[in-house]
Amino acid sequence: MTAPLPDEVLDRVFRTTRTFNHFTDRPVSEDTLRALWDLVKWGPTSANQEPLRIIWCVSAEAKARLAACASGTNGPKIEAAPVAAILGQDMAFYEKLPQLFPHTDARSWFVGKPALIEESAFRNSSLQGAYFIVAARLLGLDTGPMSGFDAAKVDAEFFAGTTVRANFITTLGYGDPAGLHARLPRLAFEDVSTIL
Amino acid sequence: MTAPLPDEVLDRVFRTTRTFNHFTDRPVSEDTLRALWDLVKWGPTSANQEPLRIIWCVSAEAKARLAACASGTNGPKIEAAPVAAILGQDMAFYEKLPQLFPHTDARSWFVGKPALIEESAFRNSSLQGAYFIVAARLLGLDTGPMSGFDAAKVDAEFFAGTTVRANFITTLGYGDPAGLHARLPRLAFEDVSTIL
Repeated sequence: MTAPLPDEVLDRVFRTTRTFNHFTDRPVSEDTLRALWDLVKWGPTSANQEPLRIIWCVSAEAKARLAACASGTNGPKIEAAPVAAILGQDMAFYEKLPQLFPHTDARSWFVGKPALIEESAFRNSSLQGAYFIVAARLLGLDTGPMSGFDAAKVDAEFFAGTTVRANFITTLGYGDPAGLHARLPRLAFEDVSTIL
Repeated sequence: MTAPLPDEVLDRVFRTTRTFNHFTDRPVSEDTLRALWDLVKWGPTSANQEPLRIIWCVSAEAKARLAACASGTNGPKIEAAPVAAILGQDMAFYEKLPQLFPHTDARSWFVGKPALIEESAFRNSSLQGAYFIVAARLLGLDTGPMSGFDAAKVDAEFFAGTTVRANFITTLGYGDPAGLHARLPRLAFEDVSTIL
């Protein structure tokens, strides 16, 4: 269990895989969406909160509604992708903790503490958003994550009357490498690290 | 490139791997920390922001200082782990965008917009925190992520005089399965999904 996985796996998950603006025509079935969640769900969250909620925009109509909330060039990317997923955060996630973290009263850690609720929902739904990107890659899919959209508009259009708020959006499909730009540089270990 | 990876990979990254409170005595070398960053760095962030900054607490003294900022049972877990990493977010991340996203003036999107800076740093450093957890697993390592600590105390103790603030902490090493509890339940596809 403690040896590194093969190079092909490291390449697929991190080293050579790209995010995509364009996808091939290959469709993404509902079975594939379910398989994706069946990986994402296992990624760890604080006290097993799992605040992520997903609206899968699959129909042309749903993608057009979402595209109308996006900025700049993101709208056409959403409309052209096989699937566009709205990754939301449930601000009432703690109501499920008696089921998800049953050995203690974790719900009481959050009730009446809006700043803590907001911080926890945002951190943990973002972790789950990253698991989503990784899980897609493990299944041979590609993503095009984006935060360039009007969150208030998405919330009004898709989450009205619920406790869910948008975190970010990602397109999903099988990436078309035509038109990819050169890869952007990355920070070095020394740029980000202090060893104490 | 579009076939799912083998079951052993899906198991290692998501399906059967656990987070750990206890680790074996096997040490984690600086080379391994560098190998870990060399995967994490490739995970996508918005406009290639890469706001994550890491303090690797390797010495007993550094781990003791961090443990003193942690709540409940987290202190002893930090002191006993081979490494405890403080995953921080650089609130001045946008100063590096001329280098990291050179084809447009992305720095100007953020200057003077504290709410947007805070949201972007938190979302993207959380994504990178999840990449950290996944990358560790790809290298055969295990993590013990925790958000139960006094963030103001960690900031004062480790980030004073810098633009970095703590996001979350994780221990790192080779997990000792002795003492693991049964796995917690997960939400089903239907609990989190709407297909439109």
